[in-house]
Amino acid sequence: MSVARIAVVGGDGIGTEVTAQARKVIDAVLPGVDYNEYDLGARLYHRTGEVLPQAVQDELAGHDAILLGAIGDPSVPPGILERGLLLRLRFDFDQYVNLRPSKLWPGTTSPLSGVKAGEIDMVVVREGTEGLYVGAGGVLHKNTPAEIATEESLNTRHGVERVIRDAFARAQRRDRRHVTLVHKTNVLTHAGNLWSRAFAAVAAEFPEVTTEYQHIDAASMFMVSNPQRFDVVVTDNLFGDILTDIAAAVTGGIGMAASGSVNPERKYPSTFEPVHGSAPDIAGKGIADPAAAILSAALLLEHLGKLDEARRVTEAVAAEVASRAPGAPLRTAEVGDRVASAL
Amino acid sequence: MSVARIAVVGGDGIGTEVTAQARKVIDAVLPGVDYNEYDLGARLYHRTGEVLPQAVQDELAGHDAILLGAIGDPSVPPGILERGLLLRLRFDFDQYVNLRPSKLWPGTTSPLSGVKAGEIDMVVVREGTEGLYVGAGGVLHKNTPAEIATEESLNTRHGVERVIRDAFARAQRRDRRHVTLVHKTNVLTHAGNLWSRAFAAVAAEFPEVTTEYQHIDAASMFMVSNPQRFDVVVTDNLFGDILTDIAAAVTGGIGMAASGSVNPERKYPSTFEPVHGSAPDIAGKGIADPAAAILSAALLLEHLGKLDEARRVTEAVAAEVASRAPGAPLRTAEVGDRVASAL
Ligand SMILES: CC(C)[C@H](C(=O)O)[C@@H](O)C(=O)O
Ligand SMILES: CC(C)[C@H](C(=O)O)[C@@H](O)C(=O)O
Repeated sequence: MSVARIAVVGGDGIGTEVTAQARKVIDAVLPGVDYNEYDLGARLYHRTGEVLPQAVQDELAGHDAILLGAIGDPSVPPGILERGLLLRLRFDFDQYVNLRPSKLWPGTTSPLSGVKAGEIDMVVVREGTEGLYVGAGGVLHKNTPAEIATEESLNTRHGVERVIRDAFARAQRRDRRHVTLVHKTNVLTHAGNLWSRAFAAVAAEFPEVTTEYQHIDAASMFMVSNPQRFDVVVTDNLFGDILTDIAAAVTGGIGMAASGSVNPERKYPSTFEPVHGSAPDIAGKGIADPAAAILSAALLLEHLGKLDEARRVTEAVAAEVASRAPGAPLRTAEVGDRVASAL
Repeated sequence: MSVARIAVVGGDGIGTEVTAQARKVIDAVLPGVDYNEYDLGARLYHRTGEVLPQAVQDELAGHDAILLGAIGDPSVPPGILERGLLLRLRFDFDQYVNLRPSKLWPGTTSPLSGVKAGEIDMVVVREGTEGLYVGAGGVLHKNTPAEIATEESLNTRHGVERVIRDAFARAQRRDRRHVTLVHKTNVLTHAGNLWSRAFAAVAAEFPEVTTEYQHIDAASMFMVSNPQRFDVVVTDNLFGDILTDIAAAVTGGIGMAASGSVNPERKYPSTFEPVHGSAPDIAGKGIADPAAAILSAALLLEHLGKLDEARRVTEAVAAEVASRAPGAPLRTAEVGDRVASAL
């Protein structure tokens, strides 16, 4: 009997190279996983014009989790693969908790002066199924001077409340027990008001968790001037997209940035993927850093309830990264081997 | 005869303290300006329930420019003063170019290690009259589990093209002649496509200006990892709000961040204000740094065609800041005096 069924979508560019290492590491801590590899991304799109065939999506639905590498290639117009694959999985599989931990690991250097390893340790809980990502919008009078284009942000009490509750539950399990709501209530008054009221209501259920509110512009500034202040951050889909990239930048870049698009009820599979892109410029050279993909595999293990295995993988990645000689060239497979053999 | 008519809206908190210094400095380089002070902000709102009476707005319209301190107080619910005053001026006075230069000045320190004074020198040209700031949106079934709230981003070819053209014209006058468009074309496909096509069309009019496109998440990361790469950035209202706060953070905080909400045709008055807020915690103590307000006055002078005066004020502020002893206490009025007497 298989211990878990994992669909692997390597995707484009360095995606397949880094997921191969993540698989290797999962096998080292959890033997007996069943994998199915799916060839999705730019190649499939160019060959067939399809991004995510319904039959493939139905098969993916039968897995416990999806391990994803990276999707995207300059040869495909913007939006096609993103909307057709990444966002389709997030929406159709109701992956409403987009989880993005950011930590300044020993051995990595923050571009911020005076910030030391261990000082930054936050998790951004980004809403994954609503907001400006829903694709509501359109264009009128295209290519004329009268053209208008719209984008609509849709926010439901249902959708907002559940992700806020998830953030509070996570904060409750952490040392500092602090949640920051980030929005732009002074301009986006309708959505901001809904988020604020839902936040206050959920906060009342968690008396041990302290809370704070920041506008997205101020929060972006604090990410640079004082990232140490953040513990758990909960925010909407677009603000979360931006904030997590700043958080990745101040913790030394996207080399260590892991993410999960999670359906907490496990009614549908959750997707785990590094925050970095497909990096076509270095694809095929075997020099991509698989650390973020392996850390994403750790989030996957945690989601499957394999807490001990998840912790061990995370620690092994941290140790491998800390042991790297500064400036030394990196081989994708060797990093995977070192992490796997340490386990 | 007066050389210019300037409306002064000190506003809340430290706002009135810093605009007083900006006035002092304007007088030192350009004697004969006519000022009218308007008492707007939280006080007026609490006294009368009004934010910007129509009669006041009509009077403001008769000025060449508005010098604004800061608006906002915790005693007023979010959005009321922002929408009722700041945004109303931007929209009603068609201030479609929201201008935000960011420079790492000598004497200021970037939180980024290894970045030296002079290396960061960019201007963000943020659209000021469209996007998610238009206030289109609403709420249904408020305070029930079925509640939804929406926010709509409206983008017109007219509005997008004119601000992009302004950005290119500015880039054309700068040394590096480079414009970066920032958007999120892979998710906000409708608005993103409009922005991209308008950008390409305007770029064709400026063959000497080089161009680049970045997604907002990537641009936010680059603001931290490599802010030196930016020259002119053009972007939408909300992305500009976020990016300029990151730009301020990496150039040492909002102490030096000036802004102008500009109607380039001068059909309506433009507003010039520091990016910082009303800072109620230090209000009335005479310790707020007026540098950003004085630099905003320099943008005002430039807008009025007083290029030489603008340059001299900017240089005097830079010299004053460079001369500060690190950690020494700062007196608002003394900074204004030192800058004014240097002129
Ligand atoms: C590729 C893109 C659609 C995606 C997003 O905007 O969510 C990416 O930036 C991310 O953060 O996962
Ligand atoms: C106060 C607020 C409405 C305003 C904005 O969002 O534009 C401010 O943040 C700014 O950047 O000028």
